[in-house]
This record gives sequence, C-alpha cells and structure tokens, in this order.
Amino acid sequence: MRIDIITILPDLMRSPFEGSIMKRAIEKGLVEVHFHNLRDYTTNKQKSVDDYQFGGGAGMVMQIQPIDDCIKKLKSERNYDEIIYMTPDGETLNQKMANSMSLLKNIIILCGHYKGVDQRVRDHLITKEISIGDYVLSGGELGAVILCDALIRLIPGVLSDETSALTDSFQDNLLAPPVYTRPADYNGWKVPEILLSGHFAKIEQWREEKAFEHTKNRRPDLLE
Amino acid sequence: MRIDIITILPDLMRSPFEGSIMKRAIEKGLVEVHFHNLRDYTTNKQKSVDDYQFGGGAGMVMQIQPIDDCIKKLKSERNYDEIIYMTPDGETLNQKMANSMSLLKNIIILCGHYKGVDQRVRDHLITKEISIGDYVLSGGELGAVILCDALIRLIPGVLSDETSALTDSFQDNLLAPPVYTRPADYNGWKVPEILLSGHFAKIEQWREEKAFEHTKNRRPDLLE
Repeated sequence: MRIDIITILPDLMRSPFEGSIMKRAIEKGLVEVHFHNLRDYTTNKQKSVDDYQFGGGAGMVMQIQPIDDCIKKLKSERNYDEIIYMTPDGETLNQKMANSMSLLKNIIILCGHYKGVDQRVRDHLITKEISIGDYVLSGGELGAVILCDALIRLIPGVLSDETSALTDSFQDNLLAPPVYTRPADYNGWKVPEILLSGHFAKIEQWREEKAFEHTKNRRPDLLE
Repeated sequence: MRIDIITILPDLMRSPFEGSIMKRAIEKGLVEVHFHNLRDYTTNKQKSVDDYQFGGGAGMVMQIQPIDDCIKKLKSERNYDEIIYMTPDGETLNQKMANSMSLLKNIIILCGHYKGVDQRVRDHLITKEISIGDYVLSGGELGAVILCDALIRLIPGVLSDETSALTDSFQDNLLAPPVYTRPADYNGWKVPEILLSGHFAKIEQWREEKAFEHTKNRRPDLLE
C-alpha cells in the first residue's frame, strides 16, 4: 500500500510513523508513506494556503489552488483508489471500513485545518470523506495518523502474530473478553480460577461468555 | 490542566505535542503534559512490562506491578480527577464528553498495548475507560494523543479565536455548513452567490439551512 498525505504540518505527524507497528511496516516494505507539504504548492509569495471565508465569520478556510495542484501532480504519477478528506462530518471510521480499506493499493489523505477546506475541493476532488469520531480536533493530521495505523496493522505480515488481530474487539461484533497475566495473586487481587485450570475447552467457553456479557453491558448496539 | 501519560512508547507521541495547538497551549502555560515510561517502573532485570496470558491465546498482556507503582507515585504527589484507560471497549469519546473533561484539573491517561492490560488494573485502578472509535489501533498512544488534542483546544485561551470553536461541528448537534474562500471562480467552479451578496442576515439564514440539510443527509442521528 502507498499512502500520500497532504498537509501543512508534516512535522506534526513524524513520530507516530517512526515507532512501533507503522515503522516496522515501512521498514518491511509493506507500506510506503509520503508527506506532501501544501506550502510547496502555493503560487503566492507569502506561501499562504488559507484565506478569509466568503460571507464573513470566524476561522480561515484552506484554498483550492495548492490542493488541486498537489493532487493533480500525484494523479499524473499513478492511479489512486481513493482521495480521502479527514473531516468530522465525514463517514465515521469503523473496523469494517478499516478491513476493506486495508486492501487498497494507493490512497491520498488530505488533512484539513482551520475551518476546513473550500467546499469546491470536497465537491470536485475528494472521493471519500472520513471522520474518526464525533469530536473536533485541531486539524486533520491526527485523524490521518489514526486512519493509517488502523489500516496498516491489518496489512498481512505487519503484525508478528496474525491471529492476534483476528481476536481483537469488533472483528466478530463482540468486545474482547478480559485478559490476565502473572502474578495469579497480586496483593489479594486474584485471577479467575478457570484460567488456571488448564481445561482449554472450558476456558474458551468462559471467554465467549465473558465477551458476550461485556458487549451486552457496554455496547448492546453491536449485538443488534 | 495537568495531563500525565503512562506509556511504554513516549517517543511515539512526541511530535504531535511539539507542533500546532498543543505546543502553543503548553508554551502559554495553559496545560502541562508529562510522559512516564512504564519501563522505569519495572522491578525485573529485563525491564519487561508484559507476559503471556493466563489460559493461553495469542497476544501479550501488560502486567499490574509497573502500572500500579507508577499510578501510586503520581497519586502520592497530587489528586487526580480521573485515571483514564484508552481501550476500544471504553465509552466512546464525543464532543460533549470532551467539553466537560476540558474542565478537569489533573488527569492520568494509561496507554494499553498488545492485548491490553491485566483486567485487575481496570477493575481496581482505573476510573474511566475511553475509546476514540469503533476500530482497533496498534496501541493506546494514538488514542491518548487524540483525547489530549480534543480537550486541550477547548481550554479557554488556547484557540486564538474563541468563537471559532463554538461554530465547529457537533457543538450545537449540527454539522458545520460549507465554507468557501477566494477565488470566487476557480476554473469555472463558483462560490454560491449569496455569500458574495453582503446581506449578512440572509447569509446567516443560508448557513443555518445548509447546516441542517447537511446534518439531515449525513447524520440524521444527531437531529433525534
């Protein structure tokens, strides 16, 4: 998978890609991530990428021209499956979307800032709008990092133990059951005895029951 | 606000706090963010923080002792309003939660990794479990960054134009209306004429209608 990220703040996003799973995926050659600084595509002397909104009101709006030029250049080099805009009013990301998007080959992610991008960018250039949740962030960069992490960890070969991702929450519409590790007794806080029994079939059954019970308590909507 | 983040990967989280809004808030003294490396709290020679799960199964589990010791130390120094664990099966973050949490004074955020933390940490030490959305990430660090950004931008004095946050999506259960900036005509893509009219009352009415229409199309659940 190749991911091209268009942003005015590439430095903000560096460290998450320089550690953990995403770093490993990049080093293994399973994913390529390229940052494109929107200011490199401005045609004005001040390298400004935003301007006041038409009709008045607080907050600046990102202009069409640098975004259009950057996307045009990328599209002239290869085909893209999706040109994504991170925005709180986009389609809400979930695990099912992440699963299917992890199969894409080339994607562009545009990070908005200030009050967002000129609506004409969204109407004419963007193919998919994604939100990571019902809250507002200071910019699209952090949302883009979340999207990348959710997708990249699902690419075959990225996680060292592939069965691990399959038993995560949401993969079967159930939350994960509780997990325990050593010591069996920590200052009187004890591990459920069943887990120490060695009866693997019973343990499996206990976990399924706990996962169902936990989902019913916390997220009954997932069971509907 | 003071935020203490407990993690095994502090370096992963650095760059988002070194740029944009969060950097400005820290520099202005409006928020303090402290990272605590869990490995500094291990009592074993290998500095390992995880172990196999009881009962078998793929994925490692984070142990109680280093987490307990780190939280104990922090609690001995000051009182905390919440001790938060980032987990996909926690309460889903939304703007209302962000608004009320932005008023807290001291919080701890624990970042899980691998299959998560020993359940006894959640049962005995954590006061609030938060998810940023229905998808699985490689660790709690990125979720913690999102939570920090969502809260920090709401602290009075952080955003340069405070009215800007109030007109964001979700603040009035409506998605934001479309925004436009110069040029009024970009290769034939035109700005709606009303926005160029100078009739501010009519523009305000148009924006309200557009926000309602947009919310009805994309997120009818917000209007219920």
